[in-house]
Amino acid sequence: MNVEEFREFGKASVDYIADYIENIRKKRVLPSVEPGYLKNEIPETAPPSGEQWRNVLSDVDRVILPGLTHWHSPHFHAYFPTANSFPGVVGELFLSGLGCVSTDWQSNPACVELEVRMMDWLAKMLGLPEHFLNESEGPGGGVIQNAASESTLVGVLSAKQKTVEMVLKEHPHLTDVDVKAKLVTYSSKESNSSVEKASLLASVPMRLLPTDAECRLRGNVLQEAIDKDKTKGLIPCCVVASLGTTGTCGFDDLEEIGRICRKENIWLHVDAAYAGAALVCPEYRYLLKGIEYVDSFNFNPHKWFLTNSDCSAMWFKNTKDAEAAFKVKATIPEEPLFEPQIENWQIPTTRRFRALKLWFVMRLYGVEGIQRHIRQQVSLAKYLEQLVRADEKFELLVSRLGVVGFRIKGRDYLTQMLLNKITERKNLYLMPYYFQNKLMVRFVVCSRLTEKEDIDFAWNEIKCITNEMQTNIINNRKLINVKKEKINANILTKVATSTFSPDLNEKLKVGLFL
Amino acid sequence: MNVEEFREFGKASVDYIADYIENIRKKRVLPSVEPGYLKNEIPETAPPSGEQWRNVLSDVDRVILPGLTHWHSPHFHAYFPTANSFPGVVGELFLSGLGCVSTDWQSNPACVELEVRMMDWLAKMLGLPEHFLNESEGPGGGVIQNAASESTLVGVLSAKQKTVEMVLKEHPHLTDVDVKAKLVTYSSKESNSSVEKASLLASVPMRLLPTDAECRLRGNVLQEAIDKDKTKGLIPCCVVASLGTTGTCGFDDLEEIGRICRKENIWLHVDAAYAGAALVCPEYRYLLKGIEYVDSFNFNPHKWFLTNSDCSAMWFKNTKDAEAAFKVKATIPEEPLFEPQIENWQIPTTRRFRALKLWFVMRLYGVEGIQRHIRQQVSLAKYLEQLVRADEKFELLVSRLGVVGFRIKGRDYLTQMLLNKITERKNLYLMPYYFQNKLMVRFVVCSRLTEKEDIDFAWNEIKCITNEMQTNIINNRKLINVKKEKINANILTKVATSTFSPDLNEKLKVGLFL
Repeated sequence: MNVEEFREFGKASVDYIADYIENIRKKRVLPSVEPGYLKNEIPETAPPSGEQWRNVLSDVDRVILPGLTHWHSPHFHAYFPTANSFPGVVGELFLSGLGCVSTDWQSNPACVELEVRMMDWLAKMLGLPEHFLNESEGPGGGVIQNAASESTLVGVLSAKQKTVEMVLKEHPHLTDVDVKAKLVTYSSKESNSSVEKASLLASVPMRLLPTDAECRLRGNVLQEAIDKDKTKGLIPCCVVASLGTTGTCGFDDLEEIGRICRKENIWLHVDAAYAGAALVCPEYRYLLKGIEYVDSFNFNPHKWFLTNSDCSAMWFKNTKDAEAAFKVKATIPEEPLFEPQIENWQIPTTRRFRALKLWFVMRLYGVEGIQRHIRQQVSLAKYLEQLVRADEKFELLVSRLGVVGFRIKGRDYLTQMLLNKITERKNLYLMPYYFQNKLMVRFVVCSRLTEKEDIDFAWNEIKCITNEMQTNIINNRKLINVKKEKINANILTKVATSTFSPDLNEKLKVGLFL
Repeated sequence: MNVEEFREFGKASVDYIADYIENIRKKRVLPSVEPGYLKNEIPETAPPSGEQWRNVLSDVDRVILPGLTHWHSPHFHAYFPTANSFPGVVGELFLSGLGCVSTDWQSNPACVELEVRMMDWLAKMLGLPEHFLNESEGPGGGVIQNAASESTLVGVLSAKQKTVEMVLKEHPHLTDVDVKAKLVTYSSKESNSSVEKASLLASVPMRLLPTDAECRLRGNVLQEAIDKDKTKGLIPCCVVASLGTTGTCGFDDLEEIGRICRKENIWLHVDAAYAGAALVCPEYRYLLKGIEYVDSFNFNPHKWFLTNSDCSAMWFKNTKDAEAAFKVKATIPEEPLFEPQIENWQIPTTRRFRALKLWFVMRLYGVEGIQRHIRQQVSLAKYLEQLVRADEKFELLVSRLGVVGFRIKGRDYLTQMLLNKITERKNLYLMPYYFQNKLMVRFVVCSRLTEKEDIDFAWNEIKCITNEMQTNIINNRKLINVKKEKINANILTKVATSTFSPDLNEKLKVGLFL
């Protein structure tokens, strides 16, 4: 492909994407393909000779689009938002087109320095403490990681290394292996499955502690678990607190947890992957109460902050702790040309120029633009909350930021049936969640394109299905009375549950029995 | 930014990138900025209101370009190639614009199924064994990871999990902790620093073994190390072999190593991050001798395979081993809608639609186009080899695939001085490396834009500097004789060494003493 073809193909692709976004509301959010559909559409081997770009573009339309779940459809309300904005897309195009990566400063001054500055812009926008800034006097700083999973892993590994060093200093007769075998970490049952995975990868057992009625991990529960472990001779090493849990957007009590962590000398990592973006609005800063106790803090601009994936922001109170865990030991400390050396706070060796898209997003939206986006999405969730409250068939369980949880009053199978029907019809994409032993519909305002009319559309769909279901159930009951037949529970199993906690999956299994 | 502005901004960016690539040969490969330059160019906080895209674009030109190391300049010969191709860039634009990620099949059928098929296309193109294919009957399969560092970590963690399970089965009286404390892994001193980092992160000690004169890890050295560790009661768990080491593109003896791994029941991971791409040409397939012993194999299409970063390809002989290490345990096994469940073979929870850019690259280049690219780059390296051989001032140390190592005959300070002058002049970007106790210039054909005239340009620059240096040295000697002054060794310390092994850094420090 020569440069002229690139200009043509690139511009045609820009138009394709623009058209796709402009018309996305008209598409059903879920695709209709059967598992394995693509095998018949794409040959078994790569073509021997290069093809024309127009063929490839038309195959995107023919093969990919029909199999796509439209994450940016205004009717996508599953998982959490995955950012997609025009400035983010062009930022990604740019960083890809320039194609410049970096290791240390010398390998690419612009890449390293822009990232250092953008992480400070971001920290200031969120109202994070001064000590997290790269430009601060102290050892704190921020860096872009690949994903929240990776950030949590980096946090847990830093905590592990720090604890081992600390214990060995106090007890020089112990070995590294002795100490590692005794480490233990904590999080809540409501934390994302990637948190448990991080402990698994870091080879440190994790206690998944129960939460209160608001899905919050509380100090007393944590303290009890720590005491119990210390009695057994174990060494508490890290707590992963969630600001905005995956299921219900619950907020752990950072202040209670933080005080305990400080007293017990335990690393505190915060996973604010989704909800962190809300801190751009001062009215949500109260959620940061206790932030002074936090050792590492993560939120994903690629979730709710309009910056296309991948872009996960992570700050450390003391970056030397991360360096100790990540810098290959034998390297001779040389006087660096530039500080901070952010390349030492991550798993990979090189880094893409992700700061560029963050820069594009923050400049083209401005602080006010991003605040407007967050407030708009929260107001849509509030609007749905009102609709739910106003309908006596439904009960509202959760409404926090963009997350709304509700259910049909009565036994769980009604809500389960509703979810199945929604998924079958493919007009909305929603998830189930168990909260306070009740199955609920978990509805998240995800797409930046969602507007009031889309909430009306969703609510109308939900109400229609519910009405129809109830009519059918009445008819079915009559039928059962006549024919002694039962409703088959198997038809209710098709709700996607993959990103939720194993605990939820267990409960869902139970929930399926009518 | 509305959709019309996106069309304008997107197309202007396509043109900017096209112009950038068209004119890249005219730019000096290394920037002239001083550390901290960007602070003065970009404000301390994000703008309150959104700006116009034209301002942002002009700031890319004003602030970013001057601080950029041009990784795609035809005069960039440092590190390894970082892929950048027109199909790759448009692929990245597309996947970013559609903005669809995936977890399991249901969350995005097209994402998952295209990745499954593309990994098979790729495996077939490289001539990898049938058992690595997703479409094969057995438990093998391939998946796209973020980076080679991550792939190695995934390999080591899978090995660890498998070994622990195996040992516990044989010795049920042991605990998980007992076994983990005894594990040990192996690689060579020449392997990439990310390999050692992986062992650090996975909490398994790694022996970095010496290589033979060709930078190859050999069977006898490995066997000796294993025997020694077993005598100590340790449990060998994983070997990371390199096909194409970072320094000199050395190839570990896969067959010798593989036989030992099979005999000892040790996981064999192959890091072929750079050189793996060469396998697309049948004439390099002999390098795969011993591949039947390999448990996990990684190469980076984002290095030499024209697919923009990030795209790291990884295959497993038995994906169940990876699943055991990565799937959060408590999840209830449900009948999946689609297999393979590639989402269980990675660290993050969600995955970008990276398969799309791989599809674009393989279709728009075709097998022949990629073969042509590899062969062209190797032939340029061979051309440089000839130039070096033909000049009696220089000695050739290495020439493998796109990597050429040479030095000025005589003591190391001459080559060190040459490297420093090259870096000062900024017309070429080269790296130092120590090989057989000699400092060499490590020259890699990196950019796909490099042509014969660029090799001539580079060689001319190298020769001119060398001639000038020699004249200066003769003059300096006269000066020293007159003024009793010494050449200051400090001016020689500015060669970038960051991505090389600590071992190298140590040697470089030593090498600086004249």
